[in-house]
Amino acid sequence: DSSNGKIDSDRDEETGKFFKIIRPLLVELIGTCIFILTGMFGACHDNENIHPLIPAFVFGLTLMAFAASFGHISGVHFNPAVTLGIFIAGQIGLVMAILDRYSTCAGGSTFLGPAVKWWEGLLIECTVTFLLVTVILMVAVDTKSKTILAPIVIGLTLTGGILGAATFTGGSLNPARSFGPSLIANQWRAHYIYFGGPLLGSLVAGFLYRLVWAHTDRRYPKQRKH
Amino acid sequence: DSSNGKIDSDRDEETGKFFKIIRPLLVELIGTCIFILTGMFGACHDNENIHPLIPAFVFGLTLMAFAASFGHISGVHFNPAVTLGIFIAGQIGLVMAILDRYSTCAGGSTFLGPAVKWWEGLLIECTVTFLLVTVILMVAVDTKSKTILAPIVIGLTLTGGILGAATFTGGSLNPARSFGPSLIANQWRAHYIYFGGPLLGSLVAGFLYRLVWAHTDRRYPKQRKH
Amino acid sequence: DSSNGKIDSDRDEETGKFFKIIRPLLVELIGTCIFILTGMFGACHDNENIHPLIPAFVFGLTLMAFAASFGHISGVHFNPAVTLGIFIAGQIGLVMAILDRYSTCAGGSTFLGPAVKWWEGLLIECTVTFLLVTVILMVAVDTKSKTILAPIVIGLTLTGGILGAATFTGGSLNPARSFGPSLIANQWRAHYIYFGGPLLGSLVAGFLYRLVWAHTDRRYPKQRKH
Amino acid sequence: DSSNGKIDSDRDEETGKFFKIIRPLLVELIGTCIFILTGMFGACHDNENIHPLIPAFVFGLTLMAFAASFGHISGVHFNPAVTLGIFIAGQIGLVMAILDRYSTCAGGSTFLGPAVKWWEGLLIECTVTFLLVTVILMVAVDTKSKTILAPIVIGLTLTGGILGAATFTGGSLNPARSFGPSLIANQWRAHYIYFGGPLLGSLVAGFLYRLVWAHTDRRYPKQRKH
Repeated sequence: DSSNGKIDSDRDEETGKFFKIIRPLLVELIGTCIFILTGMFGACHDNENIHPLIPAFVFGLTLMAFAASFGHISGVHFNPAVTLGIFIAGQIGLVMAILDRYSTCAGGSTFLGPAVKWWEGLLIECTVTFLLVTVILMVAVDTKSKTILAPIVIGLTLTGGILGAATFTGGSLNPARSFGPSLIANQWRAHYIYFGGPLLGSLVAGFLYRLVWAHTDRRYPKQRKH
Repeated sequence: DSSNGKIDSDRDEETGKFFKIIRPLLVELIGTCIFILTGMFGACHDNENIHPLIPAFVFGLTLMAFAASFGHISGVHFNPAVTLGIFIAGQIGLVMAILDRYSTCAGGSTFLGPAVKWWEGLLIECTVTFLLVTVILMVAVDTKSKTILAPIVIGLTLTGGILGAATFTGGSLNPARSFGPSLIANQWRAHYIYFGGPLLGSLVAGFLYRLVWAHTDRRYPKQRKH
Repeated sequence: DSSNGKIDSDRDEETGKFFKIIRPLLVELIGTCIFILTGMFGACHDNENIHPLIPAFVFGLTLMAFAASFGHISGVHFNPAVTLGIFIAGQIGLVMAILDRYSTCAGGSTFLGPAVKWWEGLLIECTVTFLLVTVILMVAVDTKSKTILAPIVIGLTLTGGILGAATFTGGSLNPARSFGPSLIANQWRAHYIYFGGPLLGSLVAGFLYRLVWAHTDRRYPKQRKH
Repeated sequence: DSSNGKIDSDRDEETGKFFKIIRPLLVELIGTCIFILTGMFGACHDNENIHPLIPAFVFGLTLMAFAASFGHISGVHFNPAVTLGIFIAGQIGLVMAILDRYSTCAGGSTFLGPAVKWWEGLLIECTVTFLLVTVILMVAVDTKSKTILAPIVIGLTLTGGILGAATFTGGSLNPARSFGPSLIANQWRAHYIYFGGPLLGSLVAGFLYRLVWAHTDRRYPKQRKH
């Protein structure tokens, strides 16, 4: 038994780099591409009668799918690796340009409602992203409130957030989701809110988590251990 | 080990006030504000074709998000702390007044359908709130029927209740949710049903739980212990 | 400890009749009434654009709520007690007659689509009820495939079944759900399919479960035990 | 005890063929038929306002129902037995021909959107099927990331995939689902994408799983065991 244990640990060492760096990177790369792509398909839906329901469910349920499938490999929660993912997802614009024609996919862009001021849009994107990131931190990261329901809760929170913000900003919560279609449609009115809003909401959620919500072992300032 | 245990207990003592009073209060304060705000965004949706689906899912999924994230900190179920939350949420009217113009958000108000009598509306609000509170008591409070699925079940029950009551009363189940928009739109027809209905349904659910549904250790009258 | 155990068992004896007969009966009585009532509210929705979505989600999510809350008390699955529940629920017609006017609630009736033959309707009601009852037996009754997800799976299966059958028969799956509104609207065309269909589907599901799907300890014929 | 154990094992032997071959086959046969049939009912919905929502939820929730009920008997995930299921399901065309008239059910066919090229449709069907099969492999098959939430995650991923692909290809993800209605409607334009797309996506997902995502004990190439 003891020798077997040593061999297992050797094997883990052997494939360590693959497990720790390459595989998570592949997950973020392939995952972000397919997540944005599938969601975009749904957002391009031409049935205006049920407009925000389709993209909201597609994005939410796809996120649920990835969180359930790859949560143990790379986290699928906001971490440095996502930076790369977002960079790559920005390239999705090219993929989209190949896949679709402008006309079909104008509905895929996120843009401000006609009577919405820029700072209102910023505030709304900020609020719903704050909600999403807080939920991710609480149900998937926090030592105490972690739950096996995390994939479903996170996915459906995204659905709720998109539905909530839909009339005002289109419900982005994600710079990468807004960048691609805007590139194709060449539509940049108040585009900075789709970078600023989610970033701000994400920052506030992170600070509030570290200072207030986190379980003792993750909260800042750390309690002294004698 | 024993000394470590003592230190842990010291630390818990040290931060006891923070844990027991300040943090739950913060959860109720921030939580209720964002819950009402996000739901309101969804209710303001101008697409009349799918009217009650958007607010129903936004409110339901946001409640699910909060129940999953903060259920271990403050309960997020009806308790005295909520009283404060409701008071504060009443102030949301001011936030809304800043955020939105009347015209956009008239759809966010809850009001009686044209052919619905006040006592019918009261009865319907009472019924669906009775259902919601009963579910909360059974899946999140009761010693025996408590389940880890609670956040999802509670959130989707709110969705179901709002969808059910939508034609008749707009589906409030929550005085705070009705007060803000009514303040902005200055729309007070039969507004008392949004206070009376949920309160009544909540009371009946509470009594019935204590007297009939509760597991032995929470049921009233307590069985004598020799 | 031993004396304490005896007292506990005495107390259980004491309240045995309450636990075994009265409480389950109350659950079926109150539960069926509120289940049908809330679902009916949703079915009366006057927005024809999204017709079957509202009742499907209301019925499904309400069933989920009851299964999660009262599953440990009375089963909430097809059993002799439900017979009484159905009888009482038939009386819901009176409650509805008081609550609503005919005009508002005609949409609450289930009736055959204009081009659907009676035996087609019967077959469809039979198929979806077969699906629902099979799911209930597998996820809530069977010793092996029982799962804590049962309330969500059962509720959403009802949603799926109603959505599936909506165009053809209105999606009843439940004699009590069809009887009340038909009484008010005095609409009896091919009403027997809402009794025959669910009954037939339920019977086939029950037999197939006992003979084929059930785990060894519940399957018929019982394997001899030496 | 020991003799009892022997009898149990005898009994298992006795019914071994039934358990291992006949029952799983029955599940696939009856299951695929009812899955396609119920989903088809939903797809035939004549309300164009909410077009892809109904079939997406019906197919997704029915798959959830079957995965939760029969997952322990036959897998309900892509395996050789499904080949037979698909063959039989192809026969569903005959059942449909009896059940419905052409006119009602033309909406049940999957066909390319008017401006979608064949290779775009193929790519989209391939992408969403890749997502679905990857999710099935990760949450229901993989030794490490297996989860009890599998039925819900798989079912809702199908819902998301159908909603995503709806505008472009109708959202099939399943040759059997496209074959029957196409037979009735005699509509074969670019029908090969509904065979090629899902097959291709399924193949890529399978290879990628074996080579990259799988837990050590299922990944290929196998690590040497000394």
